[in-house]
Amino acid sequence: MKEFDIIKRYFTEQVVRRKDVVLGIGDDCALIQTSERNNIAVTTDTLVAGVHFPLATPARAIGHKSIAVSLSDLAAMGAEPTWVSLALTLPEVDEVWLGEFCAGIFELCEYYNVQLIGGDTTQGPLSITVTAQGLTPVDKHISRSGAKAGDWLYVTGDIGDAALALQALEGKVQVEQVFKDQILTKLDYPKPRVLAGQALREYATSAIDLSDGLIADLAHICKASSVGANIVLDDLPISTILNDTLGHENAVNLALSGGDDYELLFTVAEDNKVGMETTLANSGIKITCIGQLNGSESITTTFNSVPVPISSAGFEHFSSVNDD
Amino acid sequence: MKEFDIIKRYFTEQVVRRKDVVLGIGDDCALIQTSERNNIAVTTDTLVAGVHFPLATPARAIGHKSIAVSLSDLAAMGAEPTWVSLALTLPEVDEVWLGEFCAGIFELCEYYNVQLIGGDTTQGPLSITVTAQGLTPVDKHISRSGAKAGDWLYVTGDIGDAALALQALEGKVQVEQVFKDQILTKLDYPKPRVLAGQALREYATSAIDLSDGLIADLAHICKASSVGANIVLDDLPISTILNDTLGHENAVNLALSGGDDYELLFTVAEDNKVGMETTLANSGIKITCIGQLNGSESITTTFNSVPVPISSAGFEHFSSVNDD
Repeated sequence: MKEFDIIKRYFTEQVVRRKDVVLGIGDDCALIQTSERNNIAVTTDTLVAGVHFPLATPARAIGHKSIAVSLSDLAAMGAEPTWVSLALTLPEVDEVWLGEFCAGIFELCEYYNVQLIGGDTTQGPLSITVTAQGLTPVDKHISRSGAKAGDWLYVTGDIGDAALALQALEGKVQVEQVFKDQILTKLDYPKPRVLAGQALREYATSAIDLSDGLIADLAHICKASSVGANIVLDDLPISTILNDTLGHENAVNLALSGGDDYELLFTVAEDNKVGMETTLANSGIKITCIGQLNGSESITTTFNSVPVPISSAGFEHFSSVNDD
Repeated sequence: MKEFDIIKRYFTEQVVRRKDVVLGIGDDCALIQTSERNNIAVTTDTLVAGVHFPLATPARAIGHKSIAVSLSDLAAMGAEPTWVSLALTLPEVDEVWLGEFCAGIFELCEYYNVQLIGGDTTQGPLSITVTAQGLTPVDKHISRSGAKAGDWLYVTGDIGDAALALQALEGKVQVEQVFKDQILTKLDYPKPRVLAGQALREYATSAIDLSDGLIADLAHICKASSVGANIVLDDLPISTILNDTLGHENAVNLALSGGDDYELLFTVAEDNKVGMETTLANSGIKITCIGQLNGSESITTTFNSVPVPISSAGFEHFSSVNDD
């Protein structure tokens, strides 16, 4: 049994089942109902220095990312972000670092009109936990479990660049400086797909944000929805930088397995395909259809219409466990 | 400038002020309004191993305490606890430890009908962050800022035992084993004053939970309410164990400065004194009047009606900083 499952088992053993909890542990966010109009989406994420971001990451990027990953979970539910709580554990009080960290936090909060409502500051090894909340109209959220065989599979933006940036930082690949800066920005300052998520409330049958990697996160949708999927590798949205740096085959592999993109992976029924594509095009959001769901129990890939085996199942290790 | 103030300054600099945030950073909880009937109280607390609890603390006690300290903040607002999110950072997956930790979490959640709605599990040095939420009727919460000169100062239960237990663990004092077990239970399994807090909604002008120590936490009320206070040392509720172990003078000092009691400190106007005392007596909750607020800007103490200087101002160090 994987470590992920071990931990999850313990936390899903609870007896309490409140009527106001619409959705508990196991999706991108929990959903609680406190009014007749809106549900509140709640998500918690911890970033540990050296595990979820390199130790040398700039303070402003750490602040940005700690908010971005939580807003990304809200986006995957179709929620409008509203309030965040911040638990910051710091080895020491460094005013320059704090100023930059807060700048990263508040840039994103101001852009999305999200208010920091509280938190805690403690001494210890650098780690940040954010609980972010948002609103979604009652019965208008997107879960992981609504996908059906026949639905089309989409992804926003490009995928794989954040993983390439991590490899470049670790010296595993050489990337020209100007391109390195571009992909580092994607790793350090991910843009949560907040507006896309809200637009998709009307169309998507399921959604998840890409934190663990395309295959790993698609597997979450497939499991929750009891469907299989085929990915058309020819259609994966891969940047020129990724393609030119690794060559096409390795680029595709990284796009399948690399995490930290924080794009949305979502599914749409045939009937809503055109409406969804039109709406998102009008909002200027790049989306790509990368495959289709089916009645199997597995994830397959094709290239040039020929089935190819999946060489990597996306990184799943203890440090990337994320319950919501 | 103290480290506490430095950090606080950064986080209160934000521009966003949402209309649905009734109370932001700076009280025991934030308050957000999402319906016409109830507000939601939100609080976040981090416990770091070796800082907020001794490294040898049993896993069940760590689980219990991580929920208890957050429910205690909700109690201080008069809120009914409803949902918790748990961020757990663990050095390794140890199933025995996890089972005990979860038992500690769920015992308290089940008792108060609180549902664990999500969280995150990451690898790193042991640390737990809980965001707890609760409901309080609109316009019926208790803040730190409502106290007035002339109000009476009360505390629930006994104070100082948790600090004595810590000293016993550190070998600074000798306590007979049977008594040591009793005070260790107070340190490891604090009982949040949830029911007292809800009863006090009708009566208290202000409240705070005792996490930093009586003087330090009273100072928060005095500052937020622009009042001073006199504590009648003769009346402090001190257990026989504390009194007999340290002698009366040292026992009083520890009751003034020691943290981790998680009792409620609250204030009541003259007109509500009898009603409050009757209600809490009927609920079987021990309360003690320990002084009165005044128009000064300071906290004073008297013994036998004679003013005595305060020998300790309660421990305030970086590791005990708590923004809500």
